[in-house]
Amino acid sequence: MVAIDPERLLADLKRLRRFGACGNGVVRRSLTPIDLEARHWLVSRFAEAGLDAGIDGLGTVFGRSKKPGPALLVGSHSDTQPTGGWLDGALGVIYGLELARALDEDPATKGLAVEVASWIDEEGTFVGMLGSTAFCGELAPEVPREALNAEGQSLEAALESAGLAGRPRASLGDRPYLGYLEAHIEQGPYLEEEGHRIGVVTSIVGIRSFDIVFEGEQNHAGTTPMARRRDAARALVALAQRLNEAFAAEAGPRSVWTIGRIEVEPGAPSIVPGRAAMIFQFRDADEGQLVALEALVRRLVAEADEAGPVRVAITARHDHTRPAVMDEGLQRHIAEAAEAHASGAWTHMPSAAGHDAQVLARHLPSAMLFIPSIGGVSHDFAEDTAEADIVLGCQVLASAAAAVLKQAS
Amino acid sequence: MVAIDPERLLADLKRLRRFGACGNGVVRRSLTPIDLEARHWLVSRFAEAGLDAGIDGLGTVFGRSKKPGPALLVGSHSDTQPTGGWLDGALGVIYGLELARALDEDPATKGLAVEVASWIDEEGTFVGMLGSTAFCGELAPEVPREALNAEGQSLEAALESAGLAGRPRASLGDRPYLGYLEAHIEQGPYLEEEGHRIGVVTSIVGIRSFDIVFEGEQNHAGTTPMARRRDAARALVALAQRLNEAFAAEAGPRSVWTIGRIEVEPGAPSIVPGRAAMIFQFRDADEGQLVALEALVRRLVAEADEAGPVRVAITARHDHTRPAVMDEGLQRHIAEAAEAHASGAWTHMPSAAGHDAQVLARHLPSAMLFIPSIGGVSHDFAEDTAEADIVLGCQVLASAAAAVLKQAS
Repeated sequence: MVAIDPERLLADLKRLRRFGACGNGVVRRSLTPIDLEARHWLVSRFAEAGLDAGIDGLGTVFGRSKKPGPALLVGSHSDTQPTGGWLDGALGVIYGLELARALDEDPATKGLAVEVASWIDEEGTFVGMLGSTAFCGELAPEVPREALNAEGQSLEAALESAGLAGRPRASLGDRPYLGYLEAHIEQGPYLEEEGHRIGVVTSIVGIRSFDIVFEGEQNHAGTTPMARRRDAARALVALAQRLNEAFAAEAGPRSVWTIGRIEVEPGAPSIVPGRAAMIFQFRDADEGQLVALEALVRRLVAEADEAGPVRVAITARHDHTRPAVMDEGLQRHIAEAAEAHASGAWTHMPSAAGHDAQVLARHLPSAMLFIPSIGGVSHDFAEDTAEADIVLGCQVLASAAAAVLKQAS
Repeated sequence: MVAIDPERLLADLKRLRRFGACGNGVVRRSLTPIDLEARHWLVSRFAEAGLDAGIDGLGTVFGRSKKPGPALLVGSHSDTQPTGGWLDGALGVIYGLELARALDEDPATKGLAVEVASWIDEEGTFVGMLGSTAFCGELAPEVPREALNAEGQSLEAALESAGLAGRPRASLGDRPYLGYLEAHIEQGPYLEEEGHRIGVVTSIVGIRSFDIVFEGEQNHAGTTPMARRRDAARALVALAQRLNEAFAAEAGPRSVWTIGRIEVEPGAPSIVPGRAAMIFQFRDADEGQLVALEALVRRLVAEADEAGPVRVAITARHDHTRPAVMDEGLQRHIAEAAEAHASGAWTHMPSAAGHDAQVLARHLPSAMLFIPSIGGVSHDFAEDTAEADIVLGCQVLASAAAAVLKQAS
């Protein structure tokens, strides 16, 4: 059975962490100088592993296999959030590198083709899941010109100054793939709480989010009697509370919902707000559940609007995603490997966060493996995972990849 | 009986409106060039009325009576909100001017002393009720240096560029006063709704306002299960709704309460808010009611904090005012005059907005007269009052002033 090299794996993870290290975490936003340094280092490590490696025209690091036959694509992303954890994304990229090396070193798997990707900008410095979206042919042509980072620089300009403008872009059409595997930290508490060391992802949650806007009447907060007010903030508070209560009663056991933004205008202590707005987002791995919850939101908004005295309107935002169901065959291979290496200490679970695998899943059989996050913490410098779990996850993924490739060869 | 000149009154009100006219409304913020033009015009009109008139070292226009004996002080303010109505403040100033003229023209009242003030900055371009506060000796010495307008200019600098720096400031100590009378539009709907043309103000509401801050834990809005969240926005929404419900049940019939500002951090659609804050303000004319309502707010905050999982803290803001009770003797004079000129069409009522009279009331017997606001609208260009009501209000105030002065002479 193929065996990974735990020390080499951990050393590479720790080396990658040094690019942008900040305390226990990492700051390595897409296409910043430190991110580009990390990408060039990845190219050299991919090349040392025998891959035909390079950075494509958007910044994705791609390691092509020189071996013939159908390939398995393995990867994740090496860019981070503004206050990023050291494993988020980086883990899946270095797992891919280690898989390519481990399979190449084992005579039984030496001929099998593993390709590795570090997709650019999963975290959305310019536009989320940019690399995987482009690879799958889903990127609208105007995006590089129009997508801006927080400093107002366009993706196009960032690529130009990174020396990547004009390079060819990696594309799904370049080679037939058996599928895509992505490993990631869970970013949630379930594995740790349940004593599991491996999660086999069944699906990636879909997200629906809405702008809900309240139009009332701005008034003097002293002289306007309560009964005559059309207070937009009051209407917002009432509907928000109603949504929280209704979702607590009707949502699924793993549904999550969030009011992440509330705005009240004009925002003065002595003025009855004339306008207010909030963003309401919810996620579930089941599309049917999402449909039912959207109907619930729309019904409560309509009831609030009809009851008055404040007008309430709802608009879907552009960041909707459908749940992405993971391939059953690939899930089975991961589950068998998990059972072999960590009998009884693994589980099936949905992913509550978005991942590049949800883009790939529309084009290739795709699957994900999770390892535990200590305390469920992520997108934070404190994010971490026990080294034994890091090593185990890579071994399970390697065994699963070998099985998938052997079955096809 | 003393008689005002309705045409002269309306002509002066309309002339004053032309300084900063904007549609039906007026933009005349304190110490702007147009406000200073209006003040210089007031000085000339006050002088034509036989008053010893000038602008003081803070911008208040003061018309001193050359007549001996105890004086009655009458006034209001000629500065406006950023989108001001044409009568708010201006009405009471021109009423004072007309009273001085009308009493001077009637042989029966010719010897009585009426002084007129247009207090600077009631609306708080720099600091609310500046002129009346300074006049009463309540202004802290650092205020002119520290108070800034929205453009960041200090009051001191504005006075310098207005050519007012170094001038003496009008002061209560300059003369013995029988009392202070201020007329104002109601700014609310009660007079119009009840078919009344004159309101005799019993007291000016007290205001209490609080910062309520929620400290939770910022988290990933996908991977953090509902049961583990410490969502500051969710806690804010729940408490705000609870406050609205409890106040609706327990506040007085004329109490008003307002959540004028809500802030949620970091304010991203996919992040569970870690911190949130709101400003909760309430007003009532009865100090006992304010005490009871503050106890209610503090109890609900303590319950929310104790229930967790979000910490909730409350801090009183600096803009608290106590209800100001109007002088009963002056109220009686206004009521008698109202009954004489508008039998049955007047009422006693509290003022739900703040006025310079609440400052004066701590030092002098003070009273206010209200006339109706069409539709209850104020602090808005649409603010207006029927001309017949404007004329009636001035006549009532003149009769009341004459009675007060005659009684004392």
